[in-house]
Amino acid sequence: MVEYAPHPLSSLSVEETSLARDIVLASSPNEVIQFRMIYRQEPEKAQLVPFLDLEHAGRLTTDTPRPPRLARVHYVRAGKSAERKADEIEATVDLNKKNVVSKDVVGQEFLAGLSTWEFDALVETCKESPLLKARIAQFSLPDGFDVIVEPWPYGGMDQPGDVRRFFQGLCFAMDRRSGNPDANYYAYPLPIIPVMDFEKNEIIRIDELATGGGDDPLAVTTPKTGPILDHCAPAEYVPELLPGGTRKDLKPLSVVQPQGPSFSIKDESLVEWQKWRFRVSFNPREGAVLHDICYDGRSVLYRLSISEMTVPYADPRAPFHRKQAFDFGDGGIGHAVNNLALGCDCLGVIKYFDGVLVDASGRAEKASQVICLHEQDDGIGWKHTNWMTNRAVSTRRRELVVQFIITLANYEYVFNYKLDLAGAINVETRATGIVSVVNIDPGKTAPWGNVVHPGTLAQNHQHIFCVRIDPAVDGHRNTVVQSDSLPVRMDARTNPHGNRYEVVDTPLLTSAGFDACPEANRVFKIQNLDIRNPVSGNPVGYKIDPPPTQKVLADPASIQAKRGSFAKHHLWLTKYRDHELYAAGHYPLSSKAEVGGVADMVARNEDLLQEDVVVWSCFGLTHNPRVEDWPVMPVEILQLHITPVDFFTANPAIDVTSGKDPASKLTNGSCCRSEQPKL
Amino acid sequence: MVEYAPHPLSSLSVEETSLARDIVLASSPNEVIQFRMIYRQEPEKAQLVPFLDLEHAGRLTTDTPRPPRLARVHYVRAGKSAERKADEIEATVDLNKKNVVSKDVVGQEFLAGLSTWEFDALVETCKESPLLKARIAQFSLPDGFDVIVEPWPYGGMDQPGDVRRFFQGLCFAMDRRSGNPDANYYAYPLPIIPVMDFEKNEIIRIDELATGGGDDPLAVTTPKTGPILDHCAPAEYVPELLPGGTRKDLKPLSVVQPQGPSFSIKDESLVEWQKWRFRVSFNPREGAVLHDICYDGRSVLYRLSISEMTVPYADPRAPFHRKQAFDFGDGGIGHAVNNLALGCDCLGVIKYFDGVLVDASGRAEKASQVICLHEQDDGIGWKHTNWMTNRAVSTRRRELVVQFIITLANYEYVFNYKLDLAGAINVETRATGIVSVVNIDPGKTAPWGNVVHPGTLAQNHQHIFCVRIDPAVDGHRNTVVQSDSLPVRMDARTNPHGNRYEVVDTPLLTSAGFDACPEANRVFKIQNLDIRNPVSGNPVGYKIDPPPTQKVLADPASIQAKRGSFAKHHLWLTKYRDHELYAAGHYPLSSKAEVGGVADMVARNEDLLQEDVVVWSCFGLTHNPRVEDWPVMPVEILQLHITPVDFFTANPAIDVTSGKDPASKLTNGSCCRSEQPKL
Repeated sequence: MVEYAPHPLSSLSVEETSLARDIVLASSPNEVIQFRMIYRQEPEKAQLVPFLDLEHAGRLTTDTPRPPRLARVHYVRAGKSAERKADEIEATVDLNKKNVVSKDVVGQEFLAGLSTWEFDALVETCKESPLLKARIAQFSLPDGFDVIVEPWPYGGMDQPGDVRRFFQGLCFAMDRRSGNPDANYYAYPLPIIPVMDFEKNEIIRIDELATGGGDDPLAVTTPKTGPILDHCAPAEYVPELLPGGTRKDLKPLSVVQPQGPSFSIKDESLVEWQKWRFRVSFNPREGAVLHDICYDGRSVLYRLSISEMTVPYADPRAPFHRKQAFDFGDGGIGHAVNNLALGCDCLGVIKYFDGVLVDASGRAEKASQVICLHEQDDGIGWKHTNWMTNRAVSTRRRELVVQFIITLANYEYVFNYKLDLAGAINVETRATGIVSVVNIDPGKTAPWGNVVHPGTLAQNHQHIFCVRIDPAVDGHRNTVVQSDSLPVRMDARTNPHGNRYEVVDTPLLTSAGFDACPEANRVFKIQNLDIRNPVSGNPVGYKIDPPPTQKVLADPASIQAKRGSFAKHHLWLTKYRDHELYAAGHYPLSSKAEVGGVADMVARNEDLLQEDVVVWSCFGLTHNPRVEDWPVMPVEILQLHITPVDFFTANPAIDVTSGKDPASKLTNGSCCRSEQPKL
Repeated sequence: MVEYAPHPLSSLSVEETSLARDIVLASSPNEVIQFRMIYRQEPEKAQLVPFLDLEHAGRLTTDTPRPPRLARVHYVRAGKSAERKADEIEATVDLNKKNVVSKDVVGQEFLAGLSTWEFDALVETCKESPLLKARIAQFSLPDGFDVIVEPWPYGGMDQPGDVRRFFQGLCFAMDRRSGNPDANYYAYPLPIIPVMDFEKNEIIRIDELATGGGDDPLAVTTPKTGPILDHCAPAEYVPELLPGGTRKDLKPLSVVQPQGPSFSIKDESLVEWQKWRFRVSFNPREGAVLHDICYDGRSVLYRLSISEMTVPYADPRAPFHRKQAFDFGDGGIGHAVNNLALGCDCLGVIKYFDGVLVDASGRAEKASQVICLHEQDDGIGWKHTNWMTNRAVSTRRRELVVQFIITLANYEYVFNYKLDLAGAINVETRATGIVSVVNIDPGKTAPWGNVVHPGTLAQNHQHIFCVRIDPAVDGHRNTVVQSDSLPVRMDARTNPHGNRYEVVDTPLLTSAGFDACPEANRVFKIQNLDIRNPVSGNPVGYKIDPPPTQKVLADPASIQAKRGSFAKHHLWLTKYRDHELYAAGHYPLSSKAEVGGVADMVARNEDLLQEDVVVWSCFGLTHNPRVEDWPVMPVEILQLHITPVDFFTANPAIDVTSGKDPASKLTNGSCCRSEQPKL
C-alpha cells in the first residue's frame, strides 16, 4: 500500500483528482454528471496553522495530525426530467476517508462558473444554428473568408431576477486564402453577436452591432448586410505572415547560469531561495498561488493569490455593456492557462510546475508547464562608493519569479510573483494580446474607442485586478496601519523653519474599503503590534504601496459597476474566514451585482485590531487603445510592492556578493562605418 | 592641419576643453583664475535645427553651415585687492574662431555652483581649524577612532540679502582599528556641523546638533561632550568587514550576447539601435544627455535630460533645515559621477562613454566610463496565443539602456534612459547609498526620522527629480494636451447602460504648472496637431504618464519650499528658450528662492499652441527610512514613461523575432534532498 501523504498545501495530483471524481461518481448512481473543476480545497486555517508551526520548527513526524486532504468538485447534475433544471453542485470530498463530506447546491440566483466544454458547445451550436447561418448569409464576405465565433461570457443580465445561462459569440471573418490557421481574424470583425441559451442548447437571438461613429445613433436601426469587410485590411502578427518578415538585426541575448539556479525544490511544491521559503500550488480558479511565505524562518504571508479581475468595456451601444469579463471568476483561468515554453516566456534556468485539469467526464489530465520559476537580474540592487577612497561596492538586484500566463480569447495576462534579495515581494501584471475590436464604418471615428486599423474600432475599457494578500507577519495576529506623510504649518515652537512634515499612522480597526492617496504618500503597513523591531522600537511590518490607479468608471447605478464592487476601492481589509478567496464573490458569471465579495465581507464590520486580517489590493489600468496597441499590444505593466518596513534589523541584502560578472564584455560599438562624411 | 569638425552635439573633447581654457587664460592676462567647469554650450536651436534637418535627410556636406562650436567656461577671477570680492565668470568661447564671445559675471545675488576643490578646501580647513579641534577635543571618542568631515552644500541662508559662500561639514567618527579605509563611518555620527566661510577660508561657527528625541526641545541647550558614541555600533557594508561575510549560495547569472550587441556607435556620439537613432553627450551639470532622438527617421525628442533634483530634510531642529541638496544645480554632478565598472553596474556587452572634467587650473582630464550603454531583457514584450490552434507567438521586451550613476557623499542615484522596441522611452531613477543619519541618544525615538541602528537616526526626507523633455514630435511645433478619462452619468440618450466613460482632451494653451491626477487616469499627450495618424485620424503624439508622487511637503513659506518651486507641480510647460535647461534655475546653491526656474519661466504666460514647447516632469519619493534601508539602502525605483500614442500605424515591435532562446535550460530544482520526512 502506497503511503498517502502529500503536503497539505500541495496541489492535487492526477491520481487524487481521479480519486475525487470516482468518489463523486460512486456517490451519485443513476445520475448524469458533467464535471467543471476539481481542485484541492484549502485546509481550514485553524487546522493548518498548527501543522505549519510544527513544520517550521522542524518537528513534524509521521504522526503529526494533519488537516483532512479535501478535494472540491464542481459539477452539473442533469435534471431527471424535462421539467427539472440541472443542478450545479459543489461537493467536498475527503480523499483519505474516500467519502463525500458535503454536496452544496449552487443557489438558483447564481450561475456556476463556465467550463470550456460549454464554450465548445457554443461554437458548435453556432455552426448549426439556422438563425445564425441565415444572418451570415446576408453578408457578402470576401472570397476565401469564413466566420469565426469566439465564445464570451454574457455580461450582467439586464432584467432583475433573470438568471439564465447565456453565452455570447463575438464574430469575425478569417481569411483562409493563405492556408495559415493563425491568420489574424480580429482584423475582420462582423457586426453581430449570437446569443446562446445553454439550457435550450440554442442560439436564441442575434444582437446587431452598430458600426457608426460618435455622431450616429447608439441603437441599430438597419442591420448591416452585404459587403461589410471591404474597408478592412489584414493585420498579421505570426512571423510568416508579416509582409516584411521579422527584423534580422536584433542579436541574441541569453541568460546563462553555469552553476545552475540558486533555488531548490522539495516535495514538488516547496521552493527555497535566498532565505525565502514558500510553497507553490496551482488551481483552476486562481492559477498559481503562493503559500506559507517565510523569510529566514519568520512567516510573512500565509497566502498570496490573484483573486479576481474585471474588464468592463465603455462603448455605450447595446449590447456592448455586456462586454465585461471577470476572467478569474467567470469560470476560472484553468483552461486559459498557457503551456509555457522554454526560452520563450522566460530566460535562464527554468523550473516548470504542472497543473491538473479535468474535462466534462472528470478525466484528469496534466496541464504541462503552467507555472515557471526562474531567477532574473533587475539591475543594481544597492551601491555605495566611498568618496574618500573611491571604492565602490555594487550588488545586483536578483529576483525569483513565479510566472503564469493566461489567454482569454483575444487578450493575455502575464502574472509574476517576484521575491527579491531585500525581503520584498512584488506582484506584477502585464496586459498584452489583441485588443477587442468591433467593425466601424469607413471614415468614422467614435469617442468610446480608437480606430486602430481600417474598419476596426478598439473600444475603451478598464482592467481592474485584485490581489489577495493573507498576511502572517511574525504570526497571524496583525494590524493594518494607514501611514500618511502630511505637511505641517510653519510654527515657532514645533516647526520653526517650515521643513518639518509629519508621518501620521492610523490603525484601521474595522473591516472596510480604503483608498490610495499619493498626495499623502499613503502606504498601508501590515504590522504585528505584539512584536517590536529591536532597533527602531516600531512594530515589525510589511507595507503595501497601493497603486493609485483609476477605479471603476462605470456609473455606480450600472450593472457593470454593481457586479464589480471590489473595483470601487484600492484596498479592502476583511477578517479572515475560511474559503473567502474571491473579491467579486464566488459567482460573478452573468451576475447583476457582486454577492459575497469584499464589499459584503467588510459589511460585517469586524474588529481588525491584532486579528487575522486579509488585505485585498485592487489596481488596474484604464485602457484607451492606441494605434500602437495593434495588432498585438506591447505589455502594459503594473506592479504592487509588498515591502518590509522595520521587519528586519538591517537591509537583508547587505551580504549579497558584489563580485564582478566575468561574462560581461566591452564593445566599442563601431560595427558599422558612418555612411556620411565625418562632420 | 587637423580637420576640425566634431558633430555639433558631441561633447567637448579633452583637446577642445584645453583649448577653451587656453583661450580664457589668454584673454585674462594678469588675472588669477580658478576654473569650475568647462562644457559644450548647447547650440542655439535656430542654428542647429537646419543642420539636423539636413543630417536626417542625408544631405550634409562638408560645406553645410553649422552652429559655432562653443564652450562655456565657468571660473572664478580672484579679486585684485583685499577689498574687492572675487568675480564669478561664465564665458562663452568660440572654439573655431578661438576667441571669447562673452564674459558674463554672475550677479552678486547668486552663488556660483560649487567645485570639488572647494569641498577639498573645506576638509583641509576643518583639519586646521582651532575652533573645530577644540570642539572635537570635548568629545571622548573611542580609542582608534578619528573624525571624518563630509562636505555638504549649505542650504538656504536664513537672512534676507545674505549671500555668503558657506559650506557645512557633516562629522562622523571612523573606526580605524581594522585598518580598512572603507569602514562605515556613518554609523558614528557626531553632533556638530562646522560651517566654513569660503571667502574667509575659515571655520566661522560650529552648529551644535540636538541628539534628543521627539519629546525633547528642538533647540540645543547644552552641547554634547564626553562619550557620545558609546551607544553606537559598527554597521559595515564592504564584504571583508561583514561579520558573517557574504552569502555563498547566490549562483552566477550572466548575460551573454554571442553575436555582440544590436547597437552601433558612429562619430563617438551617435547611437543606432532598432530604428532608434540619437546622440549621447556628457556635461558636468546634467550628466548624460540624449539629443535628437529619432525613430525610423522621424524625430521624437530634441533633447532629454535630468534637469534637477532636490532633497529636503524634514528634521525641524536647526540647522537641519539647511540639509537640502540640489544635486544637479548645487555644483553639477561632474565629479560625483561614477566610473562604471564592467560586470558590476550592468551586465552583457557594454559600450562605455567617457566624459571630460577640469580641475581648478582648468586642466582637462578624461573621466573614464561615466556612461554605459547596453541592452537588457525585461521579460515578455508581447504575446498572443491563438485559442483555436494553440499557437503562441511570444516576443521579448528588449531595452537599450543609457546609464549614469552619481555619488553625493552618502547617497547614490542611478539614472537610466531606456528605449524599448515598442517605441517608448522610459526614464528610471534608482535611489540607493547610505541614508543620512544623525546621532540620537540611547532609548530615544523621534517623529521626524527612524532609528535605523543604535545611536543613529535616519531623518525623513524627500527626493524630487525633474526630467526635462524637449519634444520634437514630427517637428518642433507641438501642443500638449491633457487627457482625462472621466465618468459619465447614466442617461437614456447617451449612456443608457451606464458603462460609458469619456476621454476629455484639453489642449494646454499657455505656459503653466500642471498636476498628475490618477483618479482621472490623466496623461499628457505631446501632439503635433498638423500631422494626423493615417489610421486613427488623431494627431500624432507621445504621451507622458506623470508619476503621481507626493510634491514638496515643506511649508510654502519655508526657504526649503521657496528654493525648489519646481517641486510644486508634477508637470510644467514652458516655451523653449535657448539655455533654459535648469528647473530650479542656474544658481540654487544656498539660494533662498528659486530664480529663473520653471516657475519664473511659466510666468511669461506664453502661447503654447503648436509652439516649441518644453515639458518638465517632476516626481519623487517621500523617504521615511526603514531599518531595512541601513546600512546601504536597497534601490527605490521610479519610472517616467514617454510612450507613443498614435505616432505609429501599428505596434512598432510587431516584427520582433519570436524565436526561442537556445541557451535556456530546464531544471527540476531538486538539487537538495528534503531534510524532513516526506509528509
